[in-house]
Amino acid sequence: MRVNLRIPGPIPVPDDILAEMAHPMINHRGPEFKEMLFRVTDGLKQVFETKGDVFIMTTSGTGAMEASVVNTLSPGDRVLCVTVGAFGDRYGEIAAAYGAEVVRLEFPWGTAADPEKVREALRKDAKVKAVLVTHNETSTGVGNDLEAIAKAVHGASDALVLVDGVSSVASIPVRTDAWGLDVVATASQKGWMLPPGLAFVSLSQRAWKAHAVAKMPRYYFDASAYKKYFEIGQPPYTPGVSLYFALDLALKQLLAEGLPPVYARHKRIAQMTRDGLKDMGLSVFPDERAASETVTAVTVPEGVDAAKVVEALRAQHGVVIAGGQEKLKGKIFRIGHMGRVSSDEIRQTLTALAATLPKAVAARA
Amino acid sequence: MRVNLRIPGPIPVPDDILAEMAHPMINHRGPEFKEMLFRVTDGLKQVFETKGDVFIMTTSGTGAMEASVVNTLSPGDRVLCVTVGAFGDRYGEIAAAYGAEVVRLEFPWGTAADPEKVREALRKDAKVKAVLVTHNETSTGVGNDLEAIAKAVHGASDALVLVDGVSSVASIPVRTDAWGLDVVATASQKGWMLPPGLAFVSLSQRAWKAHAVAKMPRYYFDASAYKKYFEIGQPPYTPGVSLYFALDLALKQLLAEGLPPVYARHKRIAQMTRDGLKDMGLSVFPDERAASETVTAVTVPEGVDAAKVVEALRAQHGVVIAGGQEKLKGKIFRIGHMGRVSSDEIRQTLTALAATLPKAVAARA
Repeated sequence: MRVNLRIPGPIPVPDDILAEMAHPMINHRGPEFKEMLFRVTDGLKQVFETKGDVFIMTTSGTGAMEASVVNTLSPGDRVLCVTVGAFGDRYGEIAAAYGAEVVRLEFPWGTAADPEKVREALRKDAKVKAVLVTHNETSTGVGNDLEAIAKAVHGASDALVLVDGVSSVASIPVRTDAWGLDVVATASQKGWMLPPGLAFVSLSQRAWKAHAVAKMPRYYFDASAYKKYFEIGQPPYTPGVSLYFALDLALKQLLAEGLPPVYARHKRIAQMTRDGLKDMGLSVFPDERAASETVTAVTVPEGVDAAKVVEALRAQHGVVIAGGQEKLKGKIFRIGHMGRVSSDEIRQTLTALAATLPKAVAARA
Repeated sequence: MRVNLRIPGPIPVPDDILAEMAHPMINHRGPEFKEMLFRVTDGLKQVFETKGDVFIMTTSGTGAMEASVVNTLSPGDRVLCVTVGAFGDRYGEIAAAYGAEVVRLEFPWGTAADPEKVREALRKDAKVKAVLVTHNETSTGVGNDLEAIAKAVHGASDALVLVDGVSSVASIPVRTDAWGLDVVATASQKGWMLPPGLAFVSLSQRAWKAHAVAKMPRYYFDASAYKKYFEIGQPPYTPGVSLYFALDLALKQLLAEGLPPVYARHKRIAQMTRDGLKDMGLSVFPDERAASETVTAVTVPEGVDAAKVVEALRAQHGVVIAGGQEKLKGKIFRIGHMGRVSSDEIRQTLTALAATLPKAVAARA
């Protein structure tokens, strides 16, 4: 039985892309790699919709978020951390670890950030150097209106907009240049249809200006090294070569399909997931107007042991979903639908869930 | 024609290990991953010869070196950077980037570090908190006597011994506990027979004590997070899952062969490489008593354009070797022999080099 991996990353990688992972090694400082580096970087820029820089780092999404912070800020800088869940909180923790003064603008878990509140916060506080914002909050299944938030920031201040786009880019529109996003950090194991291990980080001209005076210590994540080496067609440090081959094919497929159809597909599958859950009598956890298009959070019904359901789905149905994190532990299930997801995979997930839930209640009663 | 990849990493990955890279994704927070994480960590500890901790990070060797520094030191701490080449210099640069006061103890490129000089330096300076040392210097083809250096450090001071073991562990004996190595950092694309993308970092009890008061900022590389999550059988951040499958098989093979035969094999192949080069009338670049067992540096003969030779070997013979870095650019070739290297692969490399060199001289004359 093929496992139906429905967590919010890693996602099931299509077979043809997976096969690229077994490509023999090449010299990462040779001509073949150089060509590939230029080609995939060009493809990444198309997906990010930027004419600025996009760098590939061998790390996870968290590493990419760290890169966005340490490349643009100095210890003591005030940052506004707009948080609607665990990953928003993490963004603030990263900045705090490097000595930023973190001001939190928190919204209840399950709701989206209100751009108007972001604007107000910045108008009251001229010292904010950067706004940290999660585009898609994987822990609560909420999509923030990134365009509106970025507009609010730019209308009210000169603060940089640093974006955790880990579970959004390549699944949901992210118009880096048009929306004025200064750094966007994302990772391979999401809509990119790849295994985890690579992260992609964009920098705007404003981000580079900030970089020139940013004093947070950095070495492995220092964007200057990536820029300097990119000019000679190389990565600064030995990269996850296998993932480059996979990325090369994944980008070809994404761009051949076209971004608008890719985004439409994610939107449709998300809607289908929510509709199916509601048909089963379940409640989507977040405010539905803000429901994520890449991961659906659903409320665990009264009397149901969430961990048991997750385990039964895995062991008996080969369907792997995620539970809640931190304060949502035991309170929600999360179903991921990033990348090339079929309606059948969603149907199978819902059918398995429908078959498992009543037993889980009975087992507890 | 199968390429004979003879750079000092990435190395040619055996086919069966490469095939593991195409394993379908699994939940990195599920039971299958947990089992694998415990199994591979146990295998890593056997290779490191430690009962302490070894953590797996999704990064390159440079990231692992950064982890060794930021987890044990504070800004302002004095460190002794024992350097015999480009990677020794890099270690010092990393520490300096995070605010350490770096005292350099430099030895001429092509020679090994003198343990006696390390002892003297520490006796004269009681303030040194850590000694940074490269076990195998890939840029010059030199192997340092790590055991003697660690002994010198421990005999003269309480300084921590932080080791760049990137191109040594799994190819050359590294007795982490017996030699008192506090942090050893290494990476997958070397003797481990894996593609790049994972790094392995050990921490001794002394390293953990230092960690408890170490104030260098860190988040992605913070060993505490890896320790905390390891206790529940998980990585803190989404890891390079594909490489775990490959690592699982590679460790099985390494441990089945046995470490002494693996080390003996590397020693024999290194000797064969040096002997073959000398038979051709070429000179091994470093002091031969300190010649590396994982990469051989050979002096470019007078009148030969090194870059042209490297390119001709690649294009006409399918043999990929490396040139020199920084001040050795154009002055040496480097031939890697880590992992499962056959005598035939070395013979083919030498034959191709012998066929190419006279033409390279002629072309220039």
